[in-house]
Amino acid sequence: MTSPPAPQHLALRPIGVVHSPFKERVDAPRQPSAARGVEGTIELFSGRNFEQALEDIQGFNFIWVVFWFHLNTTWKPKVSPPRSGLRRGVFATRSPYRPNPIGLSVVELLKVDGLTLSVQSLDILDGTPVLDLKPYIPYSDSLPEASNGWLDAPSDPQPEYAVEFSPLATEQLAFLSVR
Amino acid sequence: MTSPPAPQHLALRPIGVVHSPFKERVDAPRQPSAARGVEGTIELFSGRNFEQALEDIQGFNFIWVVFWFHLNTTWKPKVSPPRSGLRRGVFATRSPYRPNPIGLSVVELLKVDGLTLSVQSLDILDGTPVLDLKPYIPYSDSLPEASNGWLDAPSDPQPEYAVEFSPLATEQLAFLSVR
Repeated sequence: MTSPPAPQHLALRPIGVVHSPFKERVDAPRQPSAARGVEGTIELFSGRNFEQALEDIQGFNFIWVVFWFHLNTTWKPKVSPPRSGLRRGVFATRSPYRPNPIGLSVVELLKVDGLTLSVQSLDILDGTPVLDLKPYIPYSDSLPEASNGWLDAPSDPQPEYAVEFSPLATEQLAFLSVR
Repeated sequence: MTSPPAPQHLALRPIGVVHSPFKERVDAPRQPSAARGVEGTIELFSGRNFEQALEDIQGFNFIWVVFWFHLNTTWKPKVSPPRSGLRRGVFATRSPYRPNPIGLSVVELLKVDGLTLSVQSLDILDGTPVLDLKPYIPYSDSLPEASNGWLDAPSDPQPEYAVEFSPLATEQLAFLSVR
């Protein structure tokens, strides 16, 4: 019993756009925690019943934003992530240079007003096309015991700049280490 | 300063395919926790340097699989999720009937052998096209304090079948409630 063959390509149509203070690629936080406190909005497009599709989302305080790294048109198998002195396989990173340029960020949901979602801890560039919104569900999505992979590697050469933990990351580390 | 207009559509090309025991839509677990212990593989396609792109991923014990709900060609603004007696806005659910049929699951990574990843806790249908793999990074992805939205709603009419928590969900609930 095999599954039917899927079409070769999937064509996606953006459902909305991000409005954020990060205007250029160089402005983008290299780590989500660096976006702590950054506010912005996600504006869904009108005319497609998205008002109804947004019902009940305001009960979640965190949501996943699935978006298009629209300024990235190429990908490389190995990339140099901000927290590594070594090049890493792109699937072992959250780099935007991916075979399919799909981004995934969790943001804090502050308010929903019609087709506009006010959000916080936003690490996405202004003008980014949004592909999907999903609720963050802690019982399936929260895995505090997950490993950090190469992020923990003791032999990893240090990058030439200091790594500073944001207040959120510091809080979360404290939360993890006292338990 | 506005961002350049993005193209209207994003065309994605699958990077691989899921091999799982769930052959038909009716077989698919309605909740990720129901997939606890289910093993399968993710097989990436050859000829595109994905061997290099997979380097370093084996250090992570959980990874995100971004996939295409390839059997779902329509969407509805309101859907009836398994844990609700009410219809909910689709963006407040993880339903496969979405404007852009992108799925997101976290799986446990057991082994990487060439282009084949052996995984566990797999809730994805056999034959599903894979769009992206990303490491699960607990300091940004794990938010145990996130709210459950309508999943917690006391006034929510109960569905006509019993809701049973899997061992994983029970463990995770216990973890949350003692802290």
